[in-house]
Amino acid sequence: MQVLKGAEVSAKIKEEVQGLLASVEGPAPKLAIVRVGERPDDMSYERGAIKKMENFGLRVQSYVFPGDIGDAEFKEHFAAINRDSDVAGILLLRPLPGQICESDIEKMIDPAKDLDGISPANIAKVFAGDESGFAPCTAEAVMEVLRAFDISPKGKRVTIVGRSMVVGRPLSMLMLKANATVTICHTKTADLEGTCRNAEILVAAAGRAKMLDKRFVGQDAVVIDVGINVDENGKLCGDVDYASLDGTASAATPVPGGVGAVTTAVLAKHLVRAALAGK
Amino acid sequence: MQVLKGAEVSAKIKEEVQGLLASVEGPAPKLAIVRVGERPDDMSYERGAIKKMENFGLRVQSYVFPGDIGDAEFKEHFAAINRDSDVAGILLLRPLPGQICESDIEKMIDPAKDLDGISPANIAKVFAGDESGFAPCTAEAVMEVLRAFDISPKGKRVTIVGRSMVVGRPLSMLMLKANATVTICHTKTADLEGTCRNAEILVAAAGRAKMLDKRFVGQDAVVIDVGINVDENGKLCGDVDYASLDGTASAATPVPGGVGAVTTAVLAKHLVRAALAGK
Repeated sequence: MQVLKGAEVSAKIKEEVQGLLASVEGPAPKLAIVRVGERPDDMSYERGAIKKMENFGLRVQSYVFPGDIGDAEFKEHFAAINRDSDVAGILLLRPLPGQICESDIEKMIDPAKDLDGISPANIAKVFAGDESGFAPCTAEAVMEVLRAFDISPKGKRVTIVGRSMVVGRPLSMLMLKANATVTICHTKTADLEGTCRNAEILVAAAGRAKMLDKRFVGQDAVVIDVGINVDENGKLCGDVDYASLDGTASAATPVPGGVGAVTTAVLAKHLVRAALAGK
Repeated sequence: MQVLKGAEVSAKIKEEVQGLLASVEGPAPKLAIVRVGERPDDMSYERGAIKKMENFGLRVQSYVFPGDIGDAEFKEHFAAINRDSDVAGILLLRPLPGQICESDIEKMIDPAKDLDGISPANIAKVFAGDESGFAPCTAEAVMEVLRAFDISPKGKRVTIVGRSMVVGRPLSMLMLKANATVTICHTKTADLEGTCRNAEILVAAAGRAKMLDKRFVGQDAVVIDVGINVDENGKLCGDVDYASLDGTASAATPVPGGVGAVTTAVLAKHLVRAALAGK
């Protein structure tokens, strides 16, 4: 079984980003990471993003607000970051605490700086197959993995398990744009096993530790695991029981070291694209 | 085989609309139909919509502009209709002629009056499963047909043939919201016949006369035909060869007299919803 390592994909994206950076005048583009509170998941993702931006030669600044900040006060700060001409792109760590109206922020964020595709304008573009906007980084990371390993989804049966706004839904639209025949599964799917096994490319994005094992995988299928969970021993694991795949899947992404490593590389690429579009 | 007649669905929607109308104060809500040029398809749809609004006790006014109207001039007129407080909802007949920037109009239209869901705000809501916006009427008409005949898509394998912004894409999201396992097919699908035959509910929205016959239909499947085409004898027909279905499909919508008759009823319902939300 071929191991689809995220590091290799990230290295390819780094080359691409460096090519794009050659056209950026002045200082390197700056990413604003906006975090409210101290959720460990957020902080871990933030650390990864900071490391990646630095590794790619990009600037990054974290804007951290207390977990109990009021809605109006947060919006004021967010508006200032949003307007700041030195900020080329914004990553908002979500979900926000309940007292902040997240959908207001989605509407506020400048679509040109909305690197993770949370604004209605970018969502509508992803839905329409219009590549001038920003798709959510994780969804796009799946496409980058396939591209890096020359696995074309064109005409293939692609099954996506999970229908979130961050992965499942936008990914279904990116796959459709890439001419895949797309099936979206979820908790209400009657025959999940059979539906998954029918896929030539199976994407797990359900957020449940090791919920899919080789019984869900067709012979020689490609398996992309978007899940990041903690297993019963406290170790990181995906939505797929990776160890069970050998002999069925032809290729699969490990967790950790798979899609996760690519997501921040996509974020970096989006940042440079935003900087170039803003000139 | 059960014939899923649009007229029955439309009658149910009419009752619902009349219930809603009881809460509308003042004159009946008014629909503005905006047409540029004299395309026969547009004019036929417009006649149907006018008839339906009148039948449902709603007001309707057509705004017709010459096919060669300039972009700026059209936008000025459109902005005035958009602002007019007497206009509760707008139906823009599309595609617009090439000299008018359609995507500008999509951004201009007030999402609260955008009854056919062409604005980014409404598209993003459909994508997110947020029912407070307006989905394209044709996509929603498919859901209304199923609802009227008590055919639940929940947990079912639903295959949609076609990926347009008017039907295929939004319908896939409405079906997902209704907990169907959704597969989207298109011209690049490798095994269209097998994929369609696997569906418990098959929706044809490809826009090609009689492209699907009973070979594409699983035993006892429900077939919803969104296509409106003209066959080799100049007669209206769907994307499905309806005459071939008996003995395979358990139920199917005819063309004409199926989904088409429901689309304008959905438009009427959207109009009343818009009027109520605007109070």
